[in-house]
Amino acid sequence: LRRGAFITIEGSEGVGKSSSLSAVEDAIRALGWETVVTREPGGTPLGERIREWVLGSPRGSLSAEVEALLMFAARAEHLDQVIRPALAAGRWVVCDRFSDATFAYQGAGRGASAQFLTELATRVQRGLEPDLTLLLDAPADVGLARISHREHDHFEQEGLAFFERIRDAYLAIAAGAPARVKIIDASLPIEDVRREAERIVAEFGDRFDPQ
Amino acid sequence: LRRGAFITIEGSEGVGKSSSLSAVEDAIRALGWETVVTREPGGTPLGERIREWVLGSPRGSLSAEVEALLMFAARAEHLDQVIRPALAAGRWVVCDRFSDATFAYQGAGRGASAQFLTELATRVQRGLEPDLTLLLDAPADVGLARISHREHDHFEQEGLAFFERIRDAYLAIAAGAPARVKIIDASLPIEDVRREAERIVAEFGDRFDPQ
Repeated sequence: LRRGAFITIEGSEGVGKSSSLSAVEDAIRALGWETVVTREPGGTPLGERIREWVLGSPRGSLSAEVEALLMFAARAEHLDQVIRPALAAGRWVVCDRFSDATFAYQGAGRGASAQFLTELATRVQRGLEPDLTLLLDAPADVGLARISHREHDHFEQEGLAFFERIRDAYLAIAAGAPARVKIIDASLPIEDVRREAERIVAEFGDRFDPQ
Repeated sequence: LRRGAFITIEGSEGVGKSSSLSAVEDAIRALGWETVVTREPGGTPLGERIREWVLGSPRGSLSAEVEALLMFAARAEHLDQVIRPALAAGRWVVCDRFSDATFAYQGAGRGASAQFLTELATRVQRGLEPDLTLLLDAPADVGLARISHREHDHFEQEGLAFFERIRDAYLAIAAGAPARVKIIDASLPIEDVRREAERIVAEFGDRFDPQ
């Protein structure tokens, strides 16, 4: 049995991750693979509790370091209980945010040391990286305008400068890993974004060769 | 203002930590210092929540690594919000378990890598170590016999071999840090243990010189 592919979707607020997620799922099914769709933080009972705790806590009440430790605790559990078993069973895993988000939000956004985050990622991921990451990219003000109507969580209450740091961090990650991270222009109409996501996954499916 | 002293109390199950804790408190008051008594995991809202998650989860359901990450997340918050501010204000902090317990329980007991725990401790403690640690030591079977009447949590359900590893790990830590860690024979009658704890704190008080 070939192991499944590990695909992550990343991006800041208001970039249309949910809609792209369903496009990715459709594209994987069109390739003939079973999918497991999950999210971070979350995906396990502990992960969902941590999500609730972090997103529900007042802005700035947790240090960047505490947030990072909680994210990696949730991630270690998620990898053990959901992601690795699904991949080993040949399923394709689609995860709404993963470690790139921790580097962007807790690192660039909130100031946790990149070296510390790298230590944690190395330990927790033990060599497992996403095979493909779709980065939904849009100027910070475009994303923020799109979420202006809804109630804002822990991170969504941050200002424009915070989301500009997040965007820059994501673009820097993409620049450093061009084979893994594909950038989609999320300021385009939602249907174009979906189509681009499907195209990238189809192309990836043709060349995916698990070790 | 001199910073306060940081005193931790360590030991496995059934060694009489609660009773020694009150003896330590009395001894510090006799020296004329204000005390803050706290515990790990715990001591902050997040810490108490993590305590509940870990001690309330079925035995073995969380990996050693996940437990360690949660313990250090709780510890980072506890240090920021409770321990460092109290010490800076000149108070003496008495903490029921600290990092030694993570090395003993998650490390020796459950198998988390000592190198990983050291990385986390270095990052989270940023050079702050307890000034004095009282290690309540008793053979594992003595401690377990003392708790045999009560309902057992997550760790208390483990077998004798687990608690022997905990005890050995604590004794190894003490051997490596003899100036900081003072061993008390916890198989003695409770009044003798209390008196010994008071004597050690009084002696420590005479020589404590904060940097």
